[in-house]
Amino acid sequence: MIIVGEKINTSRKAVKEAVDRRDAEFIRLLARRQHEAGAHYIDVNCGTFVHNEPELLSWIVKEVQDELGGMPLCIDSPNPLAVEAALKVHQGTAMLNSISGEKERYEALEPLVVEYGCKIVVLCMDDEFGIPPDAATRLNIASRIIESLAAKGVSHENIYVDPLIQPISVDSKNGLSSVETIRLVKDRYPEVHFICGLSNISFGLPERKLLNQAYMVVCAAYGLDAVILDPEDRKMMALVYASDALLDLDPYCGNYLKAYRKGILGD
Amino acid sequence: MIIVGEKINTSRKAVKEAVDRRDAEFIRLLARRQHEAGAHYIDVNCGTFVHNEPELLSWIVKEVQDELGGMPLCIDSPNPLAVEAALKVHQGTAMLNSISGEKERYEALEPLVVEYGCKIVVLCMDDEFGIPPDAATRLNIASRIIESLAAKGVSHENIYVDPLIQPISVDSKNGLSSVETIRLVKDRYPEVHFICGLSNISFGLPERKLLNQAYMVVCAAYGLDAVILDPEDRKMMALVYASDALLDLDPYCGNYLKAYRKGILGD
Repeated sequence: MIIVGEKINTSRKAVKEAVDRRDAEFIRLLARRQHEAGAHYIDVNCGTFVHNEPELLSWIVKEVQDELGGMPLCIDSPNPLAVEAALKVHQGTAMLNSISGEKERYEALEPLVVEYGCKIVVLCMDDEFGIPPDAATRLNIASRIIESLAAKGVSHENIYVDPLIQPISVDSKNGLSSVETIRLVKDRYPEVHFICGLSNISFGLPERKLLNQAYMVVCAAYGLDAVILDPEDRKMMALVYASDALLDLDPYCGNYLKAYRKGILGD
Repeated sequence: MIIVGEKINTSRKAVKEAVDRRDAEFIRLLARRQHEAGAHYIDVNCGTFVHNEPELLSWIVKEVQDELGGMPLCIDSPNPLAVEAALKVHQGTAMLNSISGEKERYEALEPLVVEYGCKIVVLCMDDEFGIPPDAATRLNIASRIIESLAAKGVSHENIYVDPLIQPISVDSKNGLSSVETIRLVKDRYPEVHFICGLSNISFGLPERKLLNQAYMVVCAAYGLDAVILDPEDRKMMALVYASDALLDLDPYCGNYLKAYRKGILGD
């Protein structure tokens, strides 16, 4: 499972304040801690800064990559100006989160995906349906975007489909709809990857961490191979190592045993 | 998820000693505690008593059903004499664990399944292959047994296929083989149920509970709808309630919220 560390996001108060005062040390520490906890990508999001997002996002990218020796980042913004500014300074192959079937967003971001050759997160939504409740419509939207990107030379291996997670408290079918979307898209495009955040699933219910953890395992069983989460959540990471071992994604349980020796798996 | 409480098993020392001294209070307490913790069936197994298993198994059945007002049990024995003695005294519809494709075992137990109309656990093994490593062969064995039972009037709804769990420490594909078996059998026989124990999966690895818990969720995602476990393991039961809610098996998250109010879901 590819881990995208979610903590550098200015919707979190402490991060917003740190960015406000250009506290590079704070940002670097958040990045380093997530890296050491097992993140393969660090997500960077400063979307709350509406007026100077391009400047701030590229500043964060430079600081984090400098701290982590050029480790790749997940550029998390729908704003083409911020995305372009960040991709300009990013070293190596970034992941961009995200494009969708919404016309304006698609047309603004597609040229950047092509120009910078980045990995791209595809949201299963568009102008006509918003987030459709059923897996079949999400498959259609994902297919249209995958075909459009492929026609411009984007390889299926560089595409990460986000099936979009909606709360089971709103509709008890929401958990199944998202994993059914993974199954359908995977059947049609076996080289495509799948990514999501987890916390939406449990909105409105108690013991949210329990539901998020269990849902990560459900999604992994259906083929999710990347996830946006807090890598410092030890219980969640323990389940990531366990599900990789159970689903034959960890030869000889090597990563599982390494995590055990590091003390990550115990209570 | 149907919970089969596994604790009344004379391979556990305290249970063996209690049965040795015919300590009905001890057995009844184990039964009651599992019932109160959420078990739908109580498994009863005294297979370590080779010489008087029929007498002891029927004694346990009577004590447990008397304690729990006729709640159905899972009669856990391959010994036709013990099974018949137990079914004779059992009230209501028992579950029998288990029949297999092994000729001698099948021929001895099939008439009892038909005569007593019980639910029947089907192990995916036979004389030719033992426990086959691949899902396709397990599907063939399960199909042969299901067809044979159906020809004698056993309904698919009364059949619980156990895909048989082997340790991932022995072969990292073992986790997938069992859930693939569930998927294949479910595709062919949508009315059939699936059951398994979990602890084999983690044999030979550290933090076994973590693997057993994660594997329960993986199996549930593939369609497992009954599981043999310790219902007093709160973390495992919390994940059972969570996965039921996530997989649309718990309308309005009613059981999840009830478990939360009982304090089962928290750490």
